[in-house]
Amino acid sequence: MKVGIVGLGLMGGSFALALKRKFKQRDERLEIIGLDHNDQHCLDALQLKIADKITDDINDLLNLDLIVLTIPVNAIIKLLPQLKKASSNTTIVDFGSTKEKIVASIPQEIRANFVASHPMAGTEKSGPQAADRKLYRGKVVVLCDTEENDPYHLKFAKEIFRDIGMKIFYMNAKEHDKHAAYISHMPHAVSYALANSVMKQENPKAILALAGGGFRSMSRIAKSAPTMWIDIFKQNSQNLLEATKNLKEELETFETYVKDENWEELTKWIEQANELHKIL
Amino acid sequence: MKVGIVGLGLMGGSFALALKRKFKQRDERLEIIGLDHNDQHCLDALQLKIADKITDDINDLLNLDLIVLTIPVNAIIKLLPQLKKASSNTTIVDFGSTKEKIVASIPQEIRANFVASHPMAGTEKSGPQAADRKLYRGKVVVLCDTEENDPYHLKFAKEIFRDIGMKIFYMNAKEHDKHAAYISHMPHAVSYALANSVMKQENPKAILALAGGGFRSMSRIAKSAPTMWIDIFKQNSQNLLEATKNLKEELETFETYVKDENWEELTKWIEQANELHKIL
Repeated sequence: MKVGIVGLGLMGGSFALALKRKFKQRDERLEIIGLDHNDQHCLDALQLKIADKITDDINDLLNLDLIVLTIPVNAIIKLLPQLKKASSNTTIVDFGSTKEKIVASIPQEIRANFVASHPMAGTEKSGPQAADRKLYRGKVVVLCDTEENDPYHLKFAKEIFRDIGMKIFYMNAKEHDKHAAYISHMPHAVSYALANSVMKQENPKAILALAGGGFRSMSRIAKSAPTMWIDIFKQNSQNLLEATKNLKEELETFETYVKDENWEELTKWIEQANELHKIL
Repeated sequence: MKVGIVGLGLMGGSFALALKRKFKQRDERLEIIGLDHNDQHCLDALQLKIADKITDDINDLLNLDLIVLTIPVNAIIKLLPQLKKASSNTTIVDFGSTKEKIVASIPQEIRANFVASHPMAGTEKSGPQAADRKLYRGKVVVLCDTEENDPYHLKFAKEIFRDIGMKIFYMNAKEHDKHAAYISHMPHAVSYALANSVMKQENPKAILALAGGGFRSMSRIAKSAPTMWIDIFKQNSQNLLEATKNLKEELETFETYVKDENWEELTKWIEQANELHKIL
């Protein structure tokens, strides 16, 4: 199998390493051709055996078995017209964290080939050096608007995701973006806000010296680089703002209970949050 | 050494297990006498070898080498008058997450004995079954207003904290409560708010099915039971409300940048949050 990976960072690199291991276990041949605007990423990807070859020409990927787009979401949309001439045998998947605008931008010529995907995996790290072959294992991948796909391409994409150990969910792109705002995009905004609320204090070092597990957990994703997240916030701004508004309302409920010394209602509010435990 | 532990939950249980291991390594004798209003906790503590004996009479602890208070902060304040008659040789430490009101409530008779402490450790779990002898290892403990302590008692408390592997910080109680609001109390409120913002959606299960590592990290402490946290929110309400207000302002900054499509300023705001990485 020949796979082209556009974007040799954490997501693309981890995907390559997971797939390589699977193919090695099955003693099947796999060739990965990487493309990345960052020369250092290309060098690192070769050294880390994420990619077997590097190209700077997207046309070199258009007849492969699979093209995987692991670049920021706006970069995906910008790239789509250049994929129009992909072979009808080439399956294309993207790993973008927003789906509605991407799906709306897929050129008709490759709509049947293009399986819009969102693997719910990642860390606050980035770059090929952060790649981890276990990143996707046991995690959920959401496939969107698959009724637009040719059955062959959908089946192939599903096999690949199962190969790297993922659980497959289906959802329409609109619903996905609304859910992703609550489960991922808004929480990132909150984590950034939490980090900034401390970093702007008089002596953040003295405060952070006290950080226990709770603060570490809550601020971990505030280390995520802006490159990818600005794009996500752009593309999902409406759902994101709605989710942020909801969170602020919950915080205001909390503030009111504390100000009013309404410990009874505050206890109920906390118990409702505790219910999460039963699901997650 | 004879130690009395008031409160045989996660904090008291973990302390007992850590201390027992240390004393066993040194082949020194250690007896732990536990007290807890919850009978099941007492039974569990005996079975888990957290306590060697159980008493329901606080007077049984007043002549031991050490008394450790690992109960919710308002319960500590309520208990303090009953410790007035503790021996001048008995060191007393509390593990409360707020310090100003506790310190102000220490009876003069035991002020020299009482080392006000806050170990920056914990998990979202509770009860003796959750006790973990490694909970405190490598973590920070803040000792407050130690100039009020007799040097013997301070030295003894420090030895005990070093025995269980903790790093010691000093701070006045007022400063501690302000910092703790940012690093621990407000983040708990935010995590509860995040959990509730999702739990109140139409189909929380469908949303939570998508949860990746980011949401799991941010919502973990929303599983913490109200018993302990209501007390903390009560005792540190002013600092807590200030920290929550600050967080909301950061979120509003975020919202404004998104609404105004001011991606340049949003990038700077994220980069500022990323700076946390250099400290934590």
